[in-house]
Amino acid sequence: MLTQDRREALLAIEGLASLKTELNNMNPADAGDYIASLPPKDQAIAFRLLAKSRAASVFEYLPSEVQEMLTESLHAREVQAIVEQMSPDDRAELFDELPARVVKRLLTQLSPSEREATALILGYPEGTAGRVMTTEYVRLRQDLTVSQAIQKIRKLDQDKETIYYAYLTDAERQLLGVVSLRQLLFAEPDTPVRTLARETIISVPTTADQEEVARLMKRYDLLAMPVVDLEGRLVGIVTVDDVVDILEEEATEDIQKLSGIIGGDEEALSSPIETVKKRLPWLLGNIALYMGAASAIAPFQSTISLIPVLAIIMPILANTSGNVGNQAISVTVRGLATGEVNPVDVFKILRKEILAGLVNAAALGLVLGLLTLIWSRPEEQWVGIVAAMVMAVNVLVAASLGTFLPIILKRFKQDPALVSPPLLTTTLDTFGFFTFLGLTSLFLVYFKVG
Amino acid sequence: MLTQDRREALLAIEGLASLKTELNNMNPADAGDYIASLPPKDQAIAFRLLAKSRAASVFEYLPSEVQEMLTESLHAREVQAIVEQMSPDDRAELFDELPARVVKRLLTQLSPSEREATALILGYPEGTAGRVMTTEYVRLRQDLTVSQAIQKIRKLDQDKETIYYAYLTDAERQLLGVVSLRQLLFAEPDTPVRTLARETIISVPTTADQEEVARLMKRYDLLAMPVVDLEGRLVGIVTVDDVVDILEEEATEDIQKLSGIIGGDEEALSSPIETVKKRLPWLLGNIALYMGAASAIAPFQSTISLIPVLAIIMPILANTSGNVGNQAISVTVRGLATGEVNPVDVFKILRKEILAGLVNAAALGLVLGLLTLIWSRPEEQWVGIVAAMVMAVNVLVAASLGTFLPIILKRFKQDPALVSPPLLTTTLDTFGFFTFLGLTSLFLVYFKVG
Repeated sequence: MLTQDRREALLAIEGLASLKTELNNMNPADAGDYIASLPPKDQAIAFRLLAKSRAASVFEYLPSEVQEMLTESLHAREVQAIVEQMSPDDRAELFDELPARVVKRLLTQLSPSEREATALILGYPEGTAGRVMTTEYVRLRQDLTVSQAIQKIRKLDQDKETIYYAYLTDAERQLLGVVSLRQLLFAEPDTPVRTLARETIISVPTTADQEEVARLMKRYDLLAMPVVDLEGRLVGIVTVDDVVDILEEEATEDIQKLSGIIGGDEEALSSPIETVKKRLPWLLGNIALYMGAASAIAPFQSTISLIPVLAIIMPILANTSGNVGNQAISVTVRGLATGEVNPVDVFKILRKEILAGLVNAAALGLVLGLLTLIWSRPEEQWVGIVAAMVMAVNVLVAASLGTFLPIILKRFKQDPALVSPPLLTTTLDTFGFFTFLGLTSLFLVYFKVG
Repeated sequence: MLTQDRREALLAIEGLASLKTELNNMNPADAGDYIASLPPKDQAIAFRLLAKSRAASVFEYLPSEVQEMLTESLHAREVQAIVEQMSPDDRAELFDELPARVVKRLLTQLSPSEREATALILGYPEGTAGRVMTTEYVRLRQDLTVSQAIQKIRKLDQDKETIYYAYLTDAERQLLGVVSLRQLLFAEPDTPVRTLARETIISVPTTADQEEVARLMKRYDLLAMPVVDLEGRLVGIVTVDDVVDILEEEATEDIQKLSGIIGGDEEALSSPIETVKKRLPWLLGNIALYMGAASAIAPFQSTISLIPVLAIIMPILANTSGNVGNQAISVTVRGLATGEVNPVDVFKILRKEILAGLVNAAALGLVLGLLTLIWSRPEEQWVGIVAAMVMAVNVLVAASLGTFLPIILKRFKQDPALVSPPLLTTTLDTFGFFTFLGLTSLFLVYFKVG
């Protein structure tokens, strides 16, 4: 790869000729990154240096802002040529980002077959198999022989997204089987392809959730997954490069949702306004909820006045049980996401969490009890016993709820990452503060201790 | 898929014959799951029903405990046959789990070529390209024509992990180029393969971090990545199914580490003892650190006695700034993991976080100030101003540190997920409690307010 300085020098001094050579020899992903790194005014210039055959593949690697800018600043004819060459799934993704009027214009300029493919994909809701599939796959009639099939594949135009699987269909496009190019290559030339096809075909409906599709492809180590409509007709395939992207996206969403980013899709390099929008409403909502926890303290102000060590213990109690809940949630949510945990295993997992929770509760309760002894005055050391008990109960509740709530949400087809650790923390704190201060006040009033 | 009941019935009543048919018709992943779901005593019985040609592929899908159990309970000859058929990378993974004496025995029984391949892979440290690669790839001499190349591929034994890329080498195994089966198929039969090969070959050294390899393969949409030794000789390939596994594993690690699971690799269905080991030491360490935050409160007990509303405000302050830090860390750590954020962008991102942080700080400070007014007695309402100021500063510090620390760690080649939100929270709380109580006490003492 070229260094930034060298590239700038090339652009400025040696002129555009050598940059053109460099750009056309780079990998499309690198060329896309390079163009995106240029000042906006130079992006269109650099992009025009690309050979026609490469322009579309580089375009697919550009960030959506740059794509959008280029569709405005390049000639309509150039844009049309690029959009025509893009694969239907990438084109659908681009159209999602562009203003509606631009999409409308581009759609009318597409060739009829490409327009149909794009309109088909755009017709499915975001996040479904129909939306991420491509319509450029290899379809064979089931009555071919192996050598006929290979001949047929060799004559296809080269823009099929993968030629490594071929799908067998009947005249009504019903999916009957799948053969890999590998099988074709190792088989005798006059074998009927039908006899090579696998007995059980794994396929998904167009309505399937994209994450479910990715999970199935990972499970069965598939390079492509056929997508069928409600009548069982083959309409597209999802390829393995999409699987990687989908799983990455879902992992990002879980990580961000678990720490209270709305939607879970904040980009690290987004604008400050975008950042505020993704974070502040949630933070304010959380304060509103946390007023509950704070209100649990309010009635006990006189107790705190009498025994101020309570104000030292409360944050440790809140912090620790929050952490325990956080640990339980993250293990459970991730386990549900990767399919390691199945909602039917709920009691098996709860049992484990409660057993482990008992050990943790005893240890953490003991530690808090001892710490209280250090900070409290001799006459209020009995508070240590109350602190230890409340900590132990809170830790056990934290581990149980942190495990149980995400599983239950999943069972009712909700997003398990909705139980974000901060929400659980607020609940735990309300409960913890109230029991801790309540019990302490009870001891003070009824038993006249201290 | 069969229901559990039906399977048990098959096993018990109709005898083993129909189970045998079912098992041999299932997808290997499903057959593996089914066997793993049986009571341990039935697992070896069910496994023996598999056809010899399928046993190894099902074996690869079994959880490692079951694999280990089977290597003990099957005949040595059966085990040897399975291990011989496994691909070298999966075999290396199995050997990692088995007791050393079993590995030693199995290694000596392998055929010389398989033994060499496994020993090679086991020689590389865990987490490197050398350890996850497979040695079963297609290598071609560069002087072949396209039709000779296809002939050669067709004559290979079928256990190459992928035949969709072929690597061109010279007599010293130096990697010279790569051609895809797709290129071969679309080319004229007498074209020299050399002319089809891409000019720039993307490859990684055996020592490359597995995550880096996965990121490169995702970036360039590769189905396989060649791995070369220090002298540039081709030694193996990493395939796309490994990429999916590696990225999933890394995402799990980040999610779990961010919530204080030691190592970030706790399984949701692990034993309670394992769970305690992964969680308790971190929780205890965190309490030890949090003693710092609590100690920041201790000197101010008399102030709290005088103004107990402070004890209500402190948890809100701690909770909110903790959440702000958490948000910033999760966006930054994930951005670094996916490569969206580059450590050189540190100032660009910090600028954005500080701008967004200023808005959030103003809003959250204002809210806390107003809340303080609600809970405080008339003569102590000035505390609201102190609370608002401390909240604003803490929020700004939280967002900045939550962004800066992970990037700096990455820059110094450390794991960015080491800055777990709880550690930041502890620091923020110490700082926040001390400034809040300190300022309030100052006002009380020097200005005799209240």
